[in-house]
Amino acid sequence: MAHEELQRRIEASFAQQGLMRVIEARIAEVRPGRCVIEAPFRKTMTQQHGFLHAGVLTTLADNACGYATLSLLPAGQEVLTAELKVNFLRPARGMLAIARAEVLKPGRTLTVARAEVWMRGEDGAEVLCAAMQATLVPSVAI
Amino acid sequence: MAHEELQRRIEASFAQQGLMRVIEARIAEVRPGRCVIEAPFRKTMTQQHGFLHAGVLTTLADNACGYATLSLLPAGQEVLTAELKVNFLRPARGMLAIARAEVLKPGRTLTVARAEVWMRGEDGAEVLCAAMQATLVPSVAI
Amino acid sequence: MAHEELQRRIEASFAQQGLMRVIEARIAEVRPGRCVIEAPFRKTMTQQHGFLHAGVLTTLADNACGYATLSLLPAGQEVLTAELKVNFLRPARGMLAIARAEVLKPGRTLTVARAEVWMRGEDGAEVLCAAMQATLVPSVAI
Amino acid sequence: MAHEELQRRIEASFAQQGLMRVIEARIAEVRPGRCVIEAPFRKTMTQQHGFLHAGVLTTLADNACGYATLSLLPAGQEVLTAELKVNFLRPARGMLAIARAEVLKPGRTLTVARAEVWMRGEDGAEVLCAAMQATLVPSVAI
Repeated sequence: MAHEELQRRIEASFAQQGLMRVIEARIAEVRPGRCVIEAPFRKTMTQQHGFLHAGVLTTLADNACGYATLSLLPAGQEVLTAELKVNFLRPARGMLAIARAEVLKPGRTLTVARAEVWMRGEDGAEVLCAAMQATLVPSVAI
Repeated sequence: MAHEELQRRIEASFAQQGLMRVIEARIAEVRPGRCVIEAPFRKTMTQQHGFLHAGVLTTLADNACGYATLSLLPAGQEVLTAELKVNFLRPARGMLAIARAEVLKPGRTLTVARAEVWMRGEDGAEVLCAAMQATLVPSVAI
Repeated sequence: MAHEELQRRIEASFAQQGLMRVIEARIAEVRPGRCVIEAPFRKTMTQQHGFLHAGVLTTLADNACGYATLSLLPAGQEVLTAELKVNFLRPARGMLAIARAEVLKPGRTLTVARAEVWMRGEDGAEVLCAAMQATLVPSVAI
Repeated sequence: MAHEELQRRIEASFAQQGLMRVIEARIAEVRPGRCVIEAPFRKTMTQQHGFLHAGVLTTLADNACGYATLSLLPAGQEVLTAELKVNFLRPARGMLAIARAEVLKPGRTLTVARAEVWMRGEDGAEVLCAAMQATLVPSVAI
């Protein structure tokens, strides 16, 4: 699939996700088997200590895994997350959350992907804050 | 710990979570080792097919596990999620998401909890949509 | 499916697993959506502190999930484990390991099951030592 | 810690694991934050289709994660697995199973490690068969 078509297809799916607008997330990069999604730190997205909420990190990583998977499928297919597991490694403070996902094993029935979420600080340095391993299911469009 | 004090303490922590206001979540019930958190279905919280986003289900279940754990700790302690694993069982449609968590094994270093997220429809019937197993770490307040 | 036929089918599959003989495991119970597998404590099955190895607990729980899933499928089908997650809750000491599994959500493409592994001591008391949540894939016989 | 001392310490712990002898596993390599464990394919270690059992792959990967973690701790400390999650990517056929683990985030309370299990065939080619993400707890020797 041509790169522009891939990007268009994934941006179209992304735009339909109400939650992505709330989180102010955007697709920073997508190429076959990989996807990077970014979102700014917002006070509305925190847990009780003022760090970015584990649920937000999970949402970004899950979506990055989903679009990394979708990037390998023919047009007209969709992806659902069957399950995910995520370890939270450090408190998520900083300016920008960056979820980078990669397909580990593509498949017709199941795809396995991994993602890491990094927090970028004011100085530009990045800290690894979460690591995900997820199982996704290609499906026909609903 | 007296029940009202427990409720007050957990409501206070909950109120500090910016994300809970965005999701319009509320604590429906808390007692030692258990917690129920609810949130209404909102179009702003959906994924690309119009179902409640996996990230929202995960957030609710994670928080329910966290407060079920906190309910067993002495005042002045906090809880962090070390890791979580969640299976998405059915599309999350309906009026209300209900995350019910229970501590499986409390511990000084680690606590293991399980949660289930149900979607309640207009007819009041509930459907199981997600199942979580998580590891939490009691910590002193940050 | 009649209960004897179910039992026969699952015993036949079990007998083909070389590893189950090594562990001296046996199916203690099987009924639709549930399976219990037991294995004696053996010094050959330990980790470095003399407890039953996490890998043995995982093997028993994984197999119990597999046969709980298989019990709901028509004859001629098989089951593969797509992924599993297991928390180790307490050191596994005692006389007998008992893995009890239950299907949480059956499905044509994916089944989700949970298992718990208990250790029974000389006094007959049981202690919960591990909790699993797994995703299984029904498949045609290979 | 000098490399020979590290190797000696880990070999000593490994030798105490009854299960490792049964599986005929050996430590192929250990250096700070990394460990490789190998085991031959044996008919006694199979599941019902004649592939290496998921429980064996899990055991090897779990142990590799454990010793990768131990390699970063001072002498006199031990490691326990708190939880693990493993995806099974392909049927495990071949001559030799090779579990390669790496510490993703070391910590005083919790360490997170990842492992991959490869099967090497007669032609020397390797196939990725399982991927693990695990949480480990450093502890004083029991």
